[in-house]
Amino acid sequence: MKGFVFHGPGQASWQDVPDPAIKEPTDAIVKAGAVTICGTDLHILKGDVPEVRPGTVLGHEAVGEIVETGSDVRTVRPGDRVLLSCITSCGRCRFCRESAYGQCRGGGGWILGHLIDGTQSEYVRVPCADLSVHPLPGTLRSEDAVLLADIFPTSYEVGVLNGHVRPGDTVVVVGAGPIGLAVVVTARLFAPERIIAVDLAPARLEAAHRLGADAIAAVAEDPGALVADLTDGLGADVVIEAVGVPESFELCTRMVRPGGHVANIGVHGKPATLHLEDLWIKNVTITTGLVDTYSTPTLLRMAAAGRLPTGQLVTHTFPLDHMDEAYDVFSRAADTGALKVVLGGEQHAEVAVRAA
Amino acid sequence: MKGFVFHGPGQASWQDVPDPAIKEPTDAIVKAGAVTICGTDLHILKGDVPEVRPGTVLGHEAVGEIVETGSDVRTVRPGDRVLLSCITSCGRCRFCRESAYGQCRGGGGWILGHLIDGTQSEYVRVPCADLSVHPLPGTLRSEDAVLLADIFPTSYEVGVLNGHVRPGDTVVVVGAGPIGLAVVVTARLFAPERIIAVDLAPARLEAAHRLGADAIAAVAEDPGALVADLTDGLGADVVIEAVGVPESFELCTRMVRPGGHVANIGVHGKPATLHLEDLWIKNVTITTGLVDTYSTPTLLRMAAAGRLPTGQLVTHTFPLDHMDEAYDVFSRAADTGALKVVLGGEQHAEVAVRAA
Repeated sequence: MKGFVFHGPGQASWQDVPDPAIKEPTDAIVKAGAVTICGTDLHILKGDVPEVRPGTVLGHEAVGEIVETGSDVRTVRPGDRVLLSCITSCGRCRFCRESAYGQCRGGGGWILGHLIDGTQSEYVRVPCADLSVHPLPGTLRSEDAVLLADIFPTSYEVGVLNGHVRPGDTVVVVGAGPIGLAVVVTARLFAPERIIAVDLAPARLEAAHRLGADAIAAVAEDPGALVADLTDGLGADVVIEAVGVPESFELCTRMVRPGGHVANIGVHGKPATLHLEDLWIKNVTITTGLVDTYSTPTLLRMAAAGRLPTGQLVTHTFPLDHMDEAYDVFSRAADTGALKVVLGGEQHAEVAVRAA
Repeated sequence: MKGFVFHGPGQASWQDVPDPAIKEPTDAIVKAGAVTICGTDLHILKGDVPEVRPGTVLGHEAVGEIVETGSDVRTVRPGDRVLLSCITSCGRCRFCRESAYGQCRGGGGWILGHLIDGTQSEYVRVPCADLSVHPLPGTLRSEDAVLLADIFPTSYEVGVLNGHVRPGDTVVVVGAGPIGLAVVVTARLFAPERIIAVDLAPARLEAAHRLGADAIAAVAEDPGALVADLTDGLGADVVIEAVGVPESFELCTRMVRPGGHVANIGVHGKPATLHLEDLWIKNVTITTGLVDTYSTPTLLRMAAAGRLPTGQLVTHTFPLDHMDEAYDVFSRAADTGALKVVLGGEQHAEVAVRAA
């Protein structure tokens, strides 16, 4: 089969790789129907995630059709159309027993396209299939569903739920890329008073506005002053970091009100400065997190009911074998306007059309 | 009357000051029975808290007798024996309405010995008396009660409750001064599996052990390795910072397990480094906070019932007018072995004996 293989920093290609096979009785093999590319894949390509070994197929987001299951798999069978979660869970370790699947110690966690071959290929081996794939409602298009593999549960759990967004809150989202935009969409479920999106790029701020942000602020326009103006000088109830650089995290901690929450979603490669000389007295809660995906079944139900406009984040679609082109478009987002790019999907991939 | 007056960094003295008088109808005047000195007072003397103006009477912890009340005071009257809380609360602002009294916007918060004259004097003016003093059970000695003005609610709320200590947890306390020791005492209320106290000073580690720490570790002995050994390599469920320097905060973030809590109590004068490159993926919650004192009535009840050995932290007692000597003993804790020093109190102060 073909797959998108990482060969070390700056090097990757769509190429022949061996077909995956069942290794454990809890494995399933999935034929990819729609896959997408994550900002984290770009981090890997830059060499920021050193535990990814050369030779690994990248990707941790996909929708597809089960083609084979190991002897212990109980909840899905060949022919089922499923969402592959970015998080694999054994279901048995102490973390899985507390729904902290992202921290799974039984061989799961974030492993696809990280510690084992991932989803950017024609077929994917999924360990612990019973807990790591989700059967898809037939009404949900693959292009919409695939955004529930990572970015929607991540934005919702690590941003909105960890940040404790509540009715009447002022919520600031720093970073209006796909994750930040999914924060805007899922924060609205809690009826905040206002959502303020902050980014460098006017196009992304426009997208945030279109998806429901009440106010937008370019980084250069002193978003802290805007937030102070709107909140009687107090600061925001919840500030969500969706970039992953020290400057944006530090901006978040300057904009939060006493007693407020800073929820970090960004994948960071460097330390940040924590201004404890200001923050010690402010009763601030700061959270970090890899997604657990405990919310995925709920989000799938909402998407199937038309209550989560996930597909609005998809700006480009490609056939599955146009992976190099899709990476190029996604990595030059400032020029191309790319938010999420989807490969395969109903209009491009035979398998998805057949399974729908 | 006499009071202990701050004259700028490094300078303070027990001297004549004007008697306080009722300024607002919600004020009360209290005759001090027992007062104590806080590590924060030493920070002020060093010049670390620049908003304290020269001429201010220091101190934010006391027990005493109401001698006069303004016309709007309803819940206490002259002759009542009361605890003065380190936090003053208006009871009316949005923060007070959510029990976040420490962040009071109605003229309260931490003001005693900070923005207005404090408790280290013969008489004290207490604004917003109805919500800012607590009537004392007659059975409770002043020396025991005065530790409930600040350090016990601070350790309990900002450390143990913000850190979400739960049965079976491994709890690490970095810093075994009075605050860290009160963390040991109040963390035990939640039946953790073990409490590990970390400090530089052997005498403080011994005190932690005596008060209920299950293990102790000197900073030089690699407490992180001890915690890893005891937790199967995972780290502690809850790590509580009770020092207030960047190094101790950073040590805390290295010892916490995935999904765990770091609760900062320390008063910091400098920023710390937050290693987001390690922490982003670990689902860690970090909290900061000034005490709100919402727990003070509960803690008072427990102390009166003999369930909170507050007085065990008192190492030295003095007559009230030996303030200079008490500061000297407290500020040289490494030599003197001082934990909490109490001035006045039953054996030294006429008023407390009369009121008891």
